[in-house]
Amino acid sequence: MTGADVVLTLDLLGTVTFALNGAMTASRRVRLDIVGVLSLGVITAIGGGLIRDVLLGATPPAAFQHWYYLAAAFAGAAAAWVIARPPRGLHRAIVVLDAIGLSVFCVTGAHKAVELGLQPAPAILLGAITAVGGGTIRDVLVGDVPSVLTSELYAIPALAGAAVAVLAGGSAAAAAPAAVVGAVLCFAIRMLGVRFDLHAPARDPEA
Amino acid sequence: MTGADVVLTLDLLGTVTFALNGAMTASRRVRLDIVGVLSLGVITAIGGGLIRDVLLGATPPAAFQHWYYLAAAFAGAAAAWVIARPPRGLHRAIVVLDAIGLSVFCVTGAHKAVELGLQPAPAILLGAITAVGGGTIRDVLVGDVPSVLTSELYAIPALAGAAVAVLAGGSAAAAAPAAVVGAVLCFAIRMLGVRFDLHAPARDPEA
Amino acid sequence: MTGADVVLTLDLLGTVTFALNGAMTASRRVRLDIVGVLSLGVITAIGGGLIRDVLLGATPPAAFQHWYYLAAAFAGAAAAWVIARPPRGLHRAIVVLDAIGLSVFCVTGAHKAVELGLQPAPAILLGAITAVGGGTIRDVLVGDVPSVLTSELYAIPALAGAAVAVLAGGSAAAAAPAAVVGAVLCFAIRMLGVRFDLHAPARDPEA
Repeated sequence: MTGADVVLTLDLLGTVTFALNGAMTASRRVRLDIVGVLSLGVITAIGGGLIRDVLLGATPPAAFQHWYYLAAAFAGAAAAWVIARPPRGLHRAIVVLDAIGLSVFCVTGAHKAVELGLQPAPAILLGAITAVGGGTIRDVLVGDVPSVLTSELYAIPALAGAAVAVLAGGSAAAAAPAAVVGAVLCFAIRMLGVRFDLHAPARDPEA
Repeated sequence: MTGADVVLTLDLLGTVTFALNGAMTASRRVRLDIVGVLSLGVITAIGGGLIRDVLLGATPPAAFQHWYYLAAAFAGAAAAWVIARPPRGLHRAIVVLDAIGLSVFCVTGAHKAVELGLQPAPAILLGAITAVGGGTIRDVLVGDVPSVLTSELYAIPALAGAAVAVLAGGSAAAAAPAAVVGAVLCFAIRMLGVRFDLHAPARDPEA
Repeated sequence: MTGADVVLTLDLLGTVTFALNGAMTASRRVRLDIVGVLSLGVITAIGGGLIRDVLLGATPPAAFQHWYYLAAAFAGAAAAWVIARPPRGLHRAIVVLDAIGLSVFCVTGAHKAVELGLQPAPAILLGAITAVGGGTIRDVLVGDVPSVLTSELYAIPALAGAAVAVLAGGSAAAAAPAAVVGAVLCFAIRMLGVRFDLHAPARDPEA
């Protein structure tokens, strides 16, 4: 496998897991029909990439140009409809898979932003937007305040992973190792956050 | 009338009816001022097309390039403000007009996606997004879970109509008849769904 | 200072004040962590411009091409986190600053739309969208019906300011004075609306 193969494999793995997790999360909150479950799964999986590609002017977005993205997203969302109510053990697996998706998307998003000429700061931001964008659209559609805004370490690991990918991946030779290190760092921070229930500092609204 | 005239006429009819229906639907749910009623009517009418054109990179969107789209959308939304509380009989007419809008937009959206080089599967999806996108933005803005995700046959007829337009409209000669057949199929499925109160299978959230 | 310097200065002032105001408004409504406060501040500040640039096909958006926009947005949002609970007097200042942002963005947005070839009506609309777009995204994310749809004179001054900038700014020589007059008009209508508690006509939803 070449480096590009590795990135594509990870990207598709992230797409499947985001679709699975997105569809399940949405189903737990509101009554949805099969169209809703599939739509929210697919949107969670490809939404971040759509925002990234639209903001970069890279249209039509990758998800609409290569069949395997939509296929992976529909497969994950369909699996969520079939499984319906995951047993406890699977919930833990889903958290891990979601963290993999987060880690992959933050570095691939940041990498694409750099390739298309963005400066480091907006490229890091766009990497994080790619990672959290799909889940944010899903939360808005089901009427929730996006969880990324309120709790847990979710955006911070994505920003950290994207920062490593951008700042250490300056040369062509360094891009692949920087992406791997960035993704691993994001995954590590995210899982530590889940394991020790870490949260970013928060403030309650005025009484 | 040429084929292009027919498509444009249907497109404008869909725009007016979506604006009328969108503004009325929004007004029934939350307290809105005249800016809100007009905005939500216009967004319902042109929102799906904006998403389509942005995703296809066809910017500025058609709604901002040809005056008659905005004029049709504002006319429909203004009519909704004037009528305010439609009598019962008009409600039924609005459901029919909304189904016409759905049918027109799914085939014109899919057709444009094919023209701009998308493969069949994403083109069908984009046709359906064009048809349901405006109403989805409206529902999100007034704080509702988009009805397309929760109930009734709404996305399914749009997908069916778009599929016919894309799969049967491969050649230039076949494009116009395929669009008409697709739109009629979409309209028929939608109205059968309304008449017999058909719903896609759904699942309740966990207790 | 040249005319372009004046516009850029106003644009950055609007960005800072929108970020400050956006982050504070969001914090008053829901419990947010620091990521949420910063994100909502930045989105309020640059969201309208992102929508404008995406609709115009001017990608990557200006906010991602020039470091000072993101810097100004983050500075304003960070100030909101530090201040946390503004004393009464500051609230009044924030309303004024927000009106400045509204006034600046409606004319700069409309001006950019004209420059990129839009006709007057869509250019005026896009100017208003630039001015109210960021706050609208913020309201949707925190689960509120956007205030622009329900109350107060907010969209109307933006439309008025954009209309002056577009209709009076036809020639290159007239663009700068038309922008200034448009911004002043928008500011004046907005502040009169606040002072005398003016509202656009509204209708309650059906019982």
